[in-house]
Amino acid sequence: MKKKGTFIVFEGGEGGGKSGQAKLLAQHLRDQEHPIVLTREPGGTPNIGSDIRNVLLNPKHHETMLPRTELLLFLADRTDHVEQVIRPALEKGHTVICDRFTASTFAYQCFAGEACSPDVFISIEKFARNGLTPDFTFWIDIDPQVGLERNRNSGKRDRFESKDLSFHEKVREGFQTYFDLYEDRFRFARIDGGPQIPEVQDKIKTLADRLFA
Amino acid sequence: MKKKGTFIVFEGGEGGGKSGQAKLLAQHLRDQEHPIVLTREPGGTPNIGSDIRNVLLNPKHHETMLPRTELLLFLADRTDHVEQVIRPALEKGHTVICDRFTASTFAYQCFAGEACSPDVFISIEKFARNGLTPDFTFWIDIDPQVGLERNRNSGKRDRFESKDLSFHEKVREGFQTYFDLYEDRFRFARIDGGPQIPEVQDKIKTLADRLFA
Repeated sequence: MKKKGTFIVFEGGEGGGKSGQAKLLAQHLRDQEHPIVLTREPGGTPNIGSDIRNVLLNPKHHETMLPRTELLLFLADRTDHVEQVIRPALEKGHTVICDRFTASTFAYQCFAGEACSPDVFISIEKFARNGLTPDFTFWIDIDPQVGLERNRNSGKRDRFESKDLSFHEKVREGFQTYFDLYEDRFRFARIDGGPQIPEVQDKIKTLADRLFA
Repeated sequence: MKKKGTFIVFEGGEGGGKSGQAKLLAQHLRDQEHPIVLTREPGGTPNIGSDIRNVLLNPKHHETMLPRTELLLFLADRTDHVEQVIRPALEKGHTVICDRFTASTFAYQCFAGEACSPDVFISIEKFARNGLTPDFTFWIDIDPQVGLERNRNSGKRDRFESKDLSFHEKVREGFQTYFDLYEDRFRFARIDGGPQIPEVQDKIKTLADRLFA
């Protein structure tokens, strides 16, 4: 086992402030001299990843993209991201903070998108990440109605953000199912994304500091 | 079981004349009033498929594309192609002729590319095509040295064609393994791609006419 660094993941639905919180945590840890790689899925690699991200998020494909196609594209992106970015950084002892990983693919593609059964998902997805597992996951949970409203006000609207409320409610249920059934309870924390950004960040910082203590 | 039409696949290494033979057979069957859909992988669908094909065949990704990424991109393309092109045509009673399918992915990505074990391949690939199986496969077999020489003379050279001879020898062994282990012996024919085009086509026509008799 060559991995030495810590692999932290942020998960959650739209409008919970997940990406912003990941950035704030990266800054907080950098301030403490941690070498940090902040990355995201899909599209965490400059060539292949960003090409796949463009296919996935293209509004032109909104009506025609099948759940099964979408799932396999996310997993193709993950194989590249894991081996070219995440694993090499961890092996150098860096901390990797990744915006979306396994739980998002479960919640969006498998659970809400119904691309496949959970059993099929678990085996294919593990193949894609070649067994690499997050050390800790922050699940930034938000009421989908509140989250979508926040995004609408900020003008954000890609292929996923433009799906209807019932889809996003199913996504939230998907996250709940994933963390209930497939994640070790010491390896994640559900964080309420409802409060103001600094309040949410304080909770995250406290947990992260404990992780590195 | 809604499928009514016949699903014919052409498989084989570079320079065997597979694509040309598929076209000639399509014309032969059209002459007999068969409704024919002639298609190919990767990139058998105009939007998503051709986007994925561009990622897969881009020479820029030659050095960095991982076998696992490549496999999942081919399978993402297959999901789209099966559901948007092949299955709908078969359900209308059309004959579908497809240039490359399961056996190519086995030979190139799983066997020669070593993306995964054959067992993992069989389960993921079946998931991608949602169980749809060719009725008959023409395996146009050619000595890789002869095939690559033919392609070189015609100026063809994509990411796969530019790999070295030992890779293409392993691809050929992959096809042999696939047809030995995973294909019903009444559902495929190995056709020697070495002779002149009309001679090869005559063998294919004879077998195809028997299939439709």
